[in-house]
Amino acid sequence: MALINENYFKLKAGYLFPEIGKRVREFAEKNPEKKIIRMGIGDVTLPLSPSVVKAFRDAVDEMGRKESFRGYGPEQGYAFLREAIAVNEYQNRGINIPADDIFVSDGSKCDTGNIQEIFGNENVVAICDPIYPVYADTTVMAGKTGECGPNGYFSGIVYMPCTENNNFVPDLPKEKVDLIFLCYPNNPMGTVATKKELARWVKYATDNRAIILFDAAYEAFISDPSIPRSIYEIEGAEKVAIEFRSFSKTAGFTGVRCAYTVIPSTLVAYDTQGKSHPVKPLWARRHSTKFNGVSYPVQRAAEAVYSEQGKRETKEIIAYYMENAAIMKRELAAAGFKAFGGENAPYVWAKTKNNMKSWDFFDKLLKEAGVVGTPGSGFGPSGEGYFRFSAFADRTDVIEAMGKIKALFK
Amino acid sequence: MALINENYFKLKAGYLFPEIGKRVREFAEKNPEKKIIRMGIGDVTLPLSPSVVKAFRDAVDEMGRKESFRGYGPEQGYAFLREAIAVNEYQNRGINIPADDIFVSDGSKCDTGNIQEIFGNENVVAICDPIYPVYADTTVMAGKTGECGPNGYFSGIVYMPCTENNNFVPDLPKEKVDLIFLCYPNNPMGTVATKKELARWVKYATDNRAIILFDAAYEAFISDPSIPRSIYEIEGAEKVAIEFRSFSKTAGFTGVRCAYTVIPSTLVAYDTQGKSHPVKPLWARRHSTKFNGVSYPVQRAAEAVYSEQGKRETKEIIAYYMENAAIMKRELAAAGFKAFGGENAPYVWAKTKNNMKSWDFFDKLLKEAGVVGTPGSGFGPSGEGYFRFSAFADRTDVIEAMGKIKALFK
Repeated sequence: MALINENYFKLKAGYLFPEIGKRVREFAEKNPEKKIIRMGIGDVTLPLSPSVVKAFRDAVDEMGRKESFRGYGPEQGYAFLREAIAVNEYQNRGINIPADDIFVSDGSKCDTGNIQEIFGNENVVAICDPIYPVYADTTVMAGKTGECGPNGYFSGIVYMPCTENNNFVPDLPKEKVDLIFLCYPNNPMGTVATKKELARWVKYATDNRAIILFDAAYEAFISDPSIPRSIYEIEGAEKVAIEFRSFSKTAGFTGVRCAYTVIPSTLVAYDTQGKSHPVKPLWARRHSTKFNGVSYPVQRAAEAVYSEQGKRETKEIIAYYMENAAIMKRELAAAGFKAFGGENAPYVWAKTKNNMKSWDFFDKLLKEAGVVGTPGSGFGPSGEGYFRFSAFADRTDVIEAMGKIKALFK
Repeated sequence: MALINENYFKLKAGYLFPEIGKRVREFAEKNPEKKIIRMGIGDVTLPLSPSVVKAFRDAVDEMGRKESFRGYGPEQGYAFLREAIAVNEYQNRGINIPADDIFVSDGSKCDTGNIQEIFGNENVVAICDPIYPVYADTTVMAGKTGECGPNGYFSGIVYMPCTENNNFVPDLPKEKVDLIFLCYPNNPMGTVATKKELARWVKYATDNRAIILFDAAYEAFISDPSIPRSIYEIEGAEKVAIEFRSFSKTAGFTGVRCAYTVIPSTLVAYDTQGKSHPVKPLWARRHSTKFNGVSYPVQRAAEAVYSEQGKRETKEIIAYYMENAAIMKRELAAAGFKAFGGENAPYVWAKTKNNMKSWDFFDKLLKEAGVVGTPGSGFGPSGEGYFRFSAFADRTDVIEAMGKIKALFK
């Protein structure tokens, strides 16, 4: 008798973003005439930049000629891309990460979920609350947790609340934890971590032989030079941290699919006898057994992000979104909202008014202003009463949406 | 303390194909002047067809224009591609599979490995021997097995030997099994399954409430109309089988990455109480939580395979490879080898001479003829003494390789 992985039954109904999509579709069908401004799913809106499109096209043409056609590529990614990443993202910033420690993939969502497979189910996972839902959901699917309690917490996961009380900076867990998901710049709160805060985490991981799973998908949006863009800017992190990066938000690759994960050769995990083992070969084995590499033309497109022209174009794209964030933060404040983040991250985290619940605020905003955001409670119990606005939108839409919100709440 | 998933320690050294790559690289470095003919990894050699390249390019251009740019797509795949697959691969052949039962992915290798996540570890997995190594390796990684015995079999997996004695047709397992991996046309043996044989499996699965994981990655190479190209040609299969298909070999997508998995709404698995549950929602949840969809331009390229021109081009590509297979089979026979398969599949399965071991034969062929094939033992213990030749090669290379083999073994 074929048995189901019953851990799936523990998961809460829909994954957040499909649920938002469903409510928006239903509203749009009922109100075909109403304009809807989407600032919800955090999907980019600007097209691929010219240098990226050119490299992408050229690689497609290569695939159409016998002499330049390429079949299976290296599962870990082509050297040309891994080299470009190592040099531009790390070595040029004084961080010693060789190309060989970089694994190219089709998305950070996939990597942050799949990485759990190489770690045992006895590990205690720590995650912030609120946070990107994939960390908790994949921990549940893997069987590392018990049921979900009435408080919205899965037993077995150590949650680290991030609220106004602790200025959205999580305390170190009192319990001993083994795998720690951190996301900076933070999704959904738009907050960033200082060197001092990250150093505290690296020390905790070192002292407890834990591993930090560091999601840096939004690092490109950091403009403050004092804020670390990589966990490896912290001494000792190369022994205790895995870093996840993506081209999705940086270069508009959400529909193109390219990301990468860094696993330094110096990173170790342990067997039940306490003997240490390098983690990189395990991920290499998983990667080469369950993955077949990223589409070749996509890897060429990603490589072009690091050309001189590509860098200029990417800078402009990021500046555009960050100007959106500044406008949103200013206008939300003007409308009387407490708004956080949005300075080194493309998300603004706003407190709803009169303690309105996140989903009620979502429905009110959708129905009365035609604006779609993301309910904070979808990111965890501590997100209740908050709302995420994404800066990935058209400038005129941002201005229009903010005008409508001001009119609605003033 | 971060603990490793120790199931990984059970795995045998390298995954087969990286090991072949390593030996070939080492030989090439030592003998830079020697020509090497690759018929090993089973990677396609013909370029993408013109209609595929055009659709691919056009979609890349769309991504470069604001008005036609697309970000995140549906995780399950765009409707345009799922519809094209449903109509052309199934409905036009009288098989009732709706687009909604099709999940587009970046590879069958990924899907056949990842599918295990939605099933409990108590399931007993049955696989043929020899077979594509990913089925066993991912079963081990998932923790569904014990250690690997001296016979090369992992305890907990039920192996079904395929040898000359049973004409390479596996017997039904005597033990009760829950998940059954079948691959037809077969990799590595190039054999196919008749309707009668598949009906026997569907009956077994129905009687035992088991699920068949049917890998049909090579269905396009079937020319004999009496041979089923889909498990769903068998009555009742829609209740007990998942089918995996790929564009890799059919349309030369090994470096482009696009495949799909069919999970009929009528397929059920069970909880420990024996209550049945539809499998499709579980895979949908996994897919939307751990995957972000296939690159949009890649999905447009795959759609073009089903255009009238695309169909003609694909037919020609397949005919080219199958002519290679016919030449290989004829010449290997002329060289005194017992050769199997190669008629409705792109692989020829040859018995080595004088009971030479598969890897010895590999080394001899590489060093003395510069020809790379795949050692049968790499696909399982029953593959020992056999060798796989791939028809995915240049015609002149095939003829040259066969000439060298004849010279070497006559």
